[in-house]
Amino acid sequence: MEAVLSIGTHVIPHPRKVETGGEDAFFVGGDGGGVFAIADGVSGWAEKNVNPALFSREVMANSSTFIKDEEASNDPQILLMKAHAATSSIGSATVIIAMLEKTGTLKIASVGDCGLKVIRKGQVMFSTYPQEHYFDCPYQISSEAIGQTYQDALVCTVNLMEGDMIVSGSDGFFDNIFDQEILAVISESPGIDEAAKALAELARKHSVDVRFDSPYSIEARSRGFDVPWWKKLLGAKLTGGKMDDITVIVAQVKTVAVPDDEGSGVEQEKGGEQVTVAATASAEQNE
Amino acid sequence: MEAVLSIGTHVIPHPRKVETGGEDAFFVGGDGGGVFAIADGVSGWAEKNVNPALFSREVMANSSTFIKDEEASNDPQILLMKAHAATSSIGSATVIIAMLEKTGTLKIASVGDCGLKVIRKGQVMFSTYPQEHYFDCPYQISSEAIGQTYQDALVCTVNLMEGDMIVSGSDGFFDNIFDQEILAVISESPGIDEAAKALAELARKHSVDVRFDSPYSIEARSRGFDVPWWKKLLGAKLTGGKMDDITVIVAQVKTVAVPDDEGSGVEQEKGGEQVTVAATASAEQNE
Repeated sequence: MEAVLSIGTHVIPHPRKVETGGEDAFFVGGDGGGVFAIADGVSGWAEKNVNPALFSREVMANSSTFIKDEEASNDPQILLMKAHAATSSIGSATVIIAMLEKTGTLKIASVGDCGLKVIRKGQVMFSTYPQEHYFDCPYQISSEAIGQTYQDALVCTVNLMEGDMIVSGSDGFFDNIFDQEILAVISESPGIDEAAKALAELARKHSVDVRFDSPYSIEARSRGFDVPWWKKLLGAKLTGGKMDDITVIVAQVKTVAVPDDEGSGVEQEKGGEQVTVAATASAEQNE
Repeated sequence: MEAVLSIGTHVIPHPRKVETGGEDAFFVGGDGGGVFAIADGVSGWAEKNVNPALFSREVMANSSTFIKDEEASNDPQILLMKAHAATSSIGSATVIIAMLEKTGTLKIASVGDCGLKVIRKGQVMFSTYPQEHYFDCPYQISSEAIGQTYQDALVCTVNLMEGDMIVSGSDGFFDNIFDQEILAVISESPGIDEAAKALAELARKHSVDVRFDSPYSIEARSRGFDVPWWKKLLGAKLTGGKMDDITVIVAQVKTVAVPDDEGSGVEQEKGGEQVTVAATASAEQNE
């Protein structure tokens, strides 16, 4: 038996970036037991008249190319190194890459605040942590020497079982949704595509709700950010979602029978659901 | 260069279990790049006139034996399997085992709600998640068939760098301290032994403070537990630490030069700090 991922995706751009498709990009492929990646272009580059989407999209396009490279195909940190080294755009991005070995081991490399959680038997049993320089300034790979590289990545693995669900996303997703909400949506969704869509839409709803006490607002208050003192006197506190591009990837671990003739080198996947599609996409193509 | 752990430990038993030493046990060894484990005996066994400490101590004693076994020495899940299979005591325990490969990869197997966090450059960059059947009922390996086994373990790895700090503990530690407090204590402590002691003492202080709004209380409230409604009307809410055995292990990653004569098979460790001690201990021996 071999482990493979079924992968669903959904992207909703920042409300003010709908026309350009936002600055998140992602990549999904069927290599090994399945691979996916998300890159979130750092929006500050717009102030320098640089389109922040170019860098994140190029990193994802490069990832889809170098996944065919033998060394990079089973090491997300090497894939990140090669995808970054091959960029020519100006900009920077947070990136997470995850690849499943057919043995069931999920390998992860992450720079910045994209996230990945594993859900087993209705509970979160694994989660990455964001890396940041200070509040709202994540680690990022960059066209500039000052940025981070593959060497700064969080590199970890987690052994998965049949039925495990993976929920991965850009910070625009995790800043606007709580774990308990993710668990509820996953348990209520008939499939991975529906789950990805429902999760993105719930995060989007929270992101534009100024009264929602989001994970982002709670974190901001815990870092000492707040409304002015005179608003505090009136009982106000810093709340609200965080408007941002929202990318969600939902993947489920399935096991499939290995063909008897292992010499063929061809993986036989049974049933439409197990077939993962190779795709590089940003919201521009996706929405 | 090879990665090795310097390991400091501190145990404070439950206030009502000081004479018996409590029901946590731990194991520290210098095998590979360093290994440590914590077992927390499930206290409910006392109601059946079983000493809950016997099982946890036996699991740790077995771990210190089987770490010499070739197969178990580089696979914490196999070590857990063998240590569990060799028990003869009645009881159950949550267990975490972590071992560092000389390449810098930390391998972890965990059943239940012992925890492990990795701190790099002043921030938490990796953390395990507790597994539980329901609130306050963690996954546990057991003398009874109903319990969990090594197959239910969370199995993961994380690549460590020189200077990374590992903070691991029983739930009695993590239920009574926040991440920001752990980071502050780590940054202020001159060494790993002082850090382990200061962390255990801070958690102990919180655990007996009925006004401290602990991680445990916050979690309890989020699960719907609370004070009676008439106390709520008076402005009261469920707060307080959680009295429990507190075990803390603090480990730091160092790199040491590999001797030129690699054929000797002897690891040359330089400086007293890098020498990890082989020890199996419970609070009875430790306090």
